[in-house]
Amino acid sequence: FLFEKVNLKPEVKGFFSSPYELPMVDMVFSIGGDGTFLQAVTFVRDTGIPVVGINSGRLGFLADISRHELPAALYEIEKGLFEVKKLTLLELTSPKKLIGDFNFALNELAVHKQDSSSMITIHVYLNDQFLNSYWADGLIVSTPTGSTAYSLSVGGPIMHPASQSIIITPIAPHNLTVRPLVIPDDMELTLKVEGRGGKFLASLDSRSVVVDQSTELKIKKADFTINIVERTNQSFYSTLRNKLMWGADKRN
Amino acid sequence: FLFEKVNLKPEVKGFFSSPYELPMVDMVFSIGGDGTFLQAVTFVRDTGIPVVGINSGRLGFLADISRHELPAALYEIEKGLFEVKKLTLLELTSPKKLIGDFNFALNELAVHKQDSSSMITIHVYLNDQFLNSYWADGLIVSTPTGSTAYSLSVGGPIMHPASQSIIITPIAPHNLTVRPLVIPDDMELTLKVEGRGGKFLASLDSRSVVVDQSTELKIKKADFTINIVERTNQSFYSTLRNKLMWGADKRN
Amino acid sequence: FLFEKVNLKPEVKGFFSSPYELPMVDMVFSIGGDGTFLQAVTFVRDTGIPVVGINSGRLGFLADISRHELPAALYEIEKGLFEVKKLTLLELTSPKKLIGDFNFALNELAVHKQDSSSMITIHVYLNDQFLNSYWADGLIVSTPTGSTAYSLSVGGPIMHPASQSIIITPIAPHNLTVRPLVIPDDMELTLKVEGRGGKFLASLDSRSVVVDQSTELKIKKADFTINIVERTNQSFYSTLRNKLMWGADKRN
Amino acid sequence: FLFEKVNLKPEVKGFFSSPYELPMVDMVFSIGGDGTFLQAVTFVRDTGIPVVGINSGRLGFLADISRHELPAALYEIEKGLFEVKKLTLLELTSPKKLIGDFNFALNELAVHKQDSSSMITIHVYLNDQFLNSYWADGLIVSTPTGSTAYSLSVGGPIMHPASQSIIITPIAPHNLTVRPLVIPDDMELTLKVEGRGGKFLASLDSRSVVVDQSTELKIKKADFTINIVERTNQSFYSTLRNKLMWGADKRN
Repeated sequence: FLFEKVNLKPEVKGFFSSPYELPMVDMVFSIGGDGTFLQAVTFVRDTGIPVVGINSGRLGFLADISRHELPAALYEIEKGLFEVKKLTLLELTSPKKLIGDFNFALNELAVHKQDSSSMITIHVYLNDQFLNSYWADGLIVSTPTGSTAYSLSVGGPIMHPASQSIIITPIAPHNLTVRPLVIPDDMELTLKVEGRGGKFLASLDSRSVVVDQSTELKIKKADFTINIVERTNQSFYSTLRNKLMWGADKRN
Repeated sequence: FLFEKVNLKPEVKGFFSSPYELPMVDMVFSIGGDGTFLQAVTFVRDTGIPVVGINSGRLGFLADISRHELPAALYEIEKGLFEVKKLTLLELTSPKKLIGDFNFALNELAVHKQDSSSMITIHVYLNDQFLNSYWADGLIVSTPTGSTAYSLSVGGPIMHPASQSIIITPIAPHNLTVRPLVIPDDMELTLKVEGRGGKFLASLDSRSVVVDQSTELKIKKADFTINIVERTNQSFYSTLRNKLMWGADKRN
Repeated sequence: FLFEKVNLKPEVKGFFSSPYELPMVDMVFSIGGDGTFLQAVTFVRDTGIPVVGINSGRLGFLADISRHELPAALYEIEKGLFEVKKLTLLELTSPKKLIGDFNFALNELAVHKQDSSSMITIHVYLNDQFLNSYWADGLIVSTPTGSTAYSLSVGGPIMHPASQSIIITPIAPHNLTVRPLVIPDDMELTLKVEGRGGKFLASLDSRSVVVDQSTELKIKKADFTINIVERTNQSFYSTLRNKLMWGADKRN
Repeated sequence: FLFEKVNLKPEVKGFFSSPYELPMVDMVFSIGGDGTFLQAVTFVRDTGIPVVGINSGRLGFLADISRHELPAALYEIEKGLFEVKKLTLLELTSPKKLIGDFNFALNELAVHKQDSSSMITIHVYLNDQFLNSYWADGLIVSTPTGSTAYSLSVGGPIMHPASQSIIITPIAPHNLTVRPLVIPDDMELTLKVEGRGGKFLASLDSRSVVVDQSTELKIKKADFTINIVERTNQSFYSTLRNKLMWGADKRN
């Protein structure tokens, strides 16, 4: 199993396999990468239990405490030397049970053509007002947290964690003037997909299913947040610089 | 002269040449393009007088009423069939008198190397916390209104008018992992520029000056807004689709 | 059926359903869009028969003669007022029978992750020398002809028809410093794909199959060309300007 | 002084200050960065003398031998364990004396607006045939060698050293569908610039001048090459991976 969850010492409750066992713990440790953290979120859900992201390998945006910093981090956490940051999630409000029973995403909801043969058209509505029909391989609806993940790989901007916004980023759009769009996070999005095959892929973070194109997707900001533990000496800015190697330019 | 300002009929006050004559009018008409609208802003300033953007040629994002729609628009405006949208401005709080006596921008503040020979380094601080040192031809700090202007040409995202955000977009950054960054518009930015020549260009919208690199720039959201008249049948989305030709894709 | 092939009047041979019936004709007309032209190529193959691209709807890069120009074009063709341009194809030399019995592409060979859940790694070798391991949604190997198709949608450059080059363009690459790479078209490429699911999608133009990741793909320039009929008053430059609306900028 | 040129030991000729003293030496060492190498090129010119690029700090694409590798490199060079790669230059054929007396560029010729206030229009002709009018901050005409320099920062592709091509890359183009264009390197380019100020900046590598817009620029591939010494264990691919940190991805 790729990730483990333990509550804070001295009382280690051990390993859990269901979200319903979690409510008694004070804190959840996700040990792995950002992918593991996303899985941990499907356990923690709306309990409000703070999550500590430990990376077992490469530095993550979510798993931003390295293994060798763990003792120091544990000490600091015990002393209360940390902040809890609230991370916005997206909720797939309809259909609620499309992708398992956890209809939320910390990074992004994405729709994608099912095979490589032909593009899909994604009609997007904001608060029921028509925005645009994207002809593309797919479309990403991302939180600020997700702005450094998939959306970034297809040209989306980086979002400050405090920017109360959602990004709509097309994947390989056919129209060359289509660009990522940033909208306030209190808007509701509706996606209607059309394509030759009649089916498309929908995903919440890394969980995905094949969906019939008759299915409309409705998305809004979730009513709860994921609470991530941030050490006081760490900041979004330093993580950006380190993860994206902004200081490590090797061209002259 | 490229633009004219008249108040609403039946009492046309005529043409103005100074911002101090404006306060008695009910409405200002900017006739030209988006560039003319930006000039009109330097007259209207913090008076709160609504501005109507008439384009004499190509559709603008600000000048979004075409000349032939003018009669209908005037009629609607007289009947009160319009909304007033508040557009955020950036204020150059220090040095206040750097670029004329109007230290505000509706689109963007930009810094740029002065000649083509070598890049500049722009150290950026958010609320006095170090963000990053950009090594680039320049840097754009843009409002949502400006997101469809210069920032878009260098890869910035489009911002919904209601997204309370500012975009930081580097121009020709040397580091390939540096990307546009969206931050909440209640943050204060500080820019410190360094370069071989010792000088750089700074601009507020289309007004620019040469600045010595010892000069730090401080920027925040202005305390007032520009109020733009929007016809009820028009929307940001339709202007986007029309101006950026999202519907006019000619590749198959 | 979406496309038709007729030889030049007065002797119209009619409609064909197999490539083996074609060799007797002087010229093939593809009527449809660029997609239809790509299908026509699978009939024409290495016969050297010139192809005329008629577009029944929107202007294409390949189907660049509009329906209403057809009479004039026919007249010109009868008078010999045209040039035959040779278009390079890519050959999938191994495995030859991966995607039907026509192992060639006029636009591009692409590999793509099979579902939306996780990226694939594509190890690329040029003349058996290691180039790079791309961690991405997929990778496009494109001809100059294909440079205005899929490759362009993911950020690839436009290639002049006479540039004897191949473009390697990653799709949604995770590493932000990875960029499209242009190589001479006399190099042989080898692609080895790795991913969690063990399978990936491979496509030649619009024909695609699911492939096991144990399958290495070898690609080189084909020994024959597709000969496209170009009217003398038409040029790649004017098609570029028209198709990509370079002259139709609507931002001010 | 930032760079030095010495011929191969045992006979070190010392430091030179004029290109006319160079022809007696066997090899030129450029010690510094890629910028130093570009300066060395203005000394070496069409003498055909091989240049060794030693980087005194960060790895360069041209200065790709690090200081601590110098002894090994010298030994290998003495033993003849190296290859000489021929690098294409661009020649400004008219006006020849625009930028000093060396009308050649190893990386790129660029035109740029002179100040930050308004864009310029660059009309481009290929072999006297009209290509396009770019409305932009500027335009870069780059060799394959220059493809990893300025052109890359504004979205140009990377070119294989053996691709006999030239790249035309606009800087901050206003039209969103304009993309980098790769053309065969045997084409002649003509640039005509228009702008509000009547002047523009033109540069050959890092040397630049202000030019009146009545001046047309004509560019073609130079008749000679710069010969760079490449150690046998080094390749363009490994330099790409190292310089651009393709292997050093830190996002998960």
